[in-house]
Amino acid sequence: MISSGHDERAIGIFDSGVGGLTVLREIRARLPGEHLIYLGDTARLPYGTKSPASVLQYARQAVSHLVLSDIKLLVVACNTASAVALAPLQDELAPLPVIGVVHPGARAAVAARPGGHHLVLATEATVRLGAYGKAIRSLDASAQVDELSCELLVALAEEGWTTGGVADAIVGEYLQPVLDTDDSDKISSIILGCTHFPLLRTPIRNFVGDAVSITDSASTTAAVVEQALRNRKLLRSESSAAFLQLRATDGARRFARVGGTFLGTDLQPHDIDLVDL
Amino acid sequence: MISSGHDERAIGIFDSGVGGLTVLREIRARLPGEHLIYLGDTARLPYGTKSPASVLQYARQAVSHLVLSDIKLLVVACNTASAVALAPLQDELAPLPVIGVVHPGARAAVAARPGGHHLVLATEATVRLGAYGKAIRSLDASAQVDELSCELLVALAEEGWTTGGVADAIVGEYLQPVLDTDDSDKISSIILGCTHFPLLRTPIRNFVGDAVSITDSASTTAAVVEQALRNRKLLRSESSAAFLQLRATDGARRFARVGGTFLGTDLQPHDIDLVDL
Repeated sequence: MISSGHDERAIGIFDSGVGGLTVLREIRARLPGEHLIYLGDTARLPYGTKSPASVLQYARQAVSHLVLSDIKLLVVACNTASAVALAPLQDELAPLPVIGVVHPGARAAVAARPGGHHLVLATEATVRLGAYGKAIRSLDASAQVDELSCELLVALAEEGWTTGGVADAIVGEYLQPVLDTDDSDKISSIILGCTHFPLLRTPIRNFVGDAVSITDSASTTAAVVEQALRNRKLLRSESSAAFLQLRATDGARRFARVGGTFLGTDLQPHDIDLVDL
Repeated sequence: MISSGHDERAIGIFDSGVGGLTVLREIRARLPGEHLIYLGDTARLPYGTKSPASVLQYARQAVSHLVLSDIKLLVVACNTASAVALAPLQDELAPLPVIGVVHPGARAAVAARPGGHHLVLATEATVRLGAYGKAIRSLDASAQVDELSCELLVALAEEGWTTGGVADAIVGEYLQPVLDTDDSDKISSIILGCTHFPLLRTPIRNFVGDAVSITDSASTTAAVVEQALRNRKLLRSESSAAFLQLRATDGARRFARVGGTFLGTDLQPHDIDLVDL
């Protein structure tokens, strides 16, 4: 299928649910000529409260499904799965390029605030593994990193209550104690370390003010994907229209309703293919 | 193992996670001499956003595990699993008595407000199936029933934010629109149709005031369990101390932390046995 520096195969994008659609949206904006296959493991979401062993097992099963579709690159568009499973998946799938969202997010935050004090908002599993802290300190030894588990923000984004009094109250409840204890060395950067959280950028911005940088992984991950395809001469020739396939392991109706918010377009249940892992 | 009208075997209690511990607590209070085995399917929670087909499959696997422990009665202490899977499980496990939480909850609400206007707060899956509405109308043809999906309350209870400004704001966001559209025939009864929601009784009570009855399934389910054991002469002889076994399919640390809140006692990770379904 590879001919003269082009590759017509699709990019595979894997997430625990619909949150990774924020990453898909950025990839599609940057690479409109690329075929995309998205798989959301909605039957077993959320990953963020599960143990590392379960997350690794679920990720392996989901990725095996995508690999059967003969993809040319895999994006692990879930922070928890990236934190837990990226290295083993890269080993097991080599030479397939596998790109996670933690390192791109860390890189973007360090670029925005060199030597900064970063606060990572993420799921319980991502925080427990300290994945962002390690990634940031490997890029910027002078950086300071705090990580905060914010499970309720996942449900808040899925409910679609992304602005208003409830969103403001929940964001405040999480952030106020951190800001209160931090008068000596103020936080200069917030990292949205879960693909659900870009939907909550407005209440977070309202709470922390304009001086704090707010970074998510979606845009930088899309840039890393483009670079990886260019370096390996794997871009499509773009001679024909690109397809987008959305697959989920459960609940097409809910995927369409909630996923439409994340993708920024209207989705119908028949747009989603249900697959059994 | 059955002798002279007693049965030393344990009661099996199954839930998707830790919420069913509110039911276990009531059963233990009422039947302190009974052995209890609790299984929380934490590897696949929450059930409330999953499709009926997935919920039925998960419930069957979890229940098979409990049946291998030679139980004398099974409690499906999860509203979603009760709504989706109770009838098939009763068929498949007969003659083992299988008790769900939807009918006991409906019975308690009807007893509290005969001819009343009930508002059921539940998960998306329970609401979609209309299980409480059917159960209530089968008991009280004059009752009126509305059902409201409140996914965010599950995450709120798990985060432990059961009182305070955030809990009040979320409860108000769900209930205000219902109360606003309901001036012609005021709601007289609220049913907590998810085992997580008894933890949020205080903010719900604060919002609706004292005139509205608030019912959960836990206490009535425990009464139904006691009656079923008495009728079948299956109570323990109570000559020796009763055991409590807590099992989960993932995350002993999180189960202990969150489950302790639900059980009203301190739990440690080593109190939980991890099982693989």
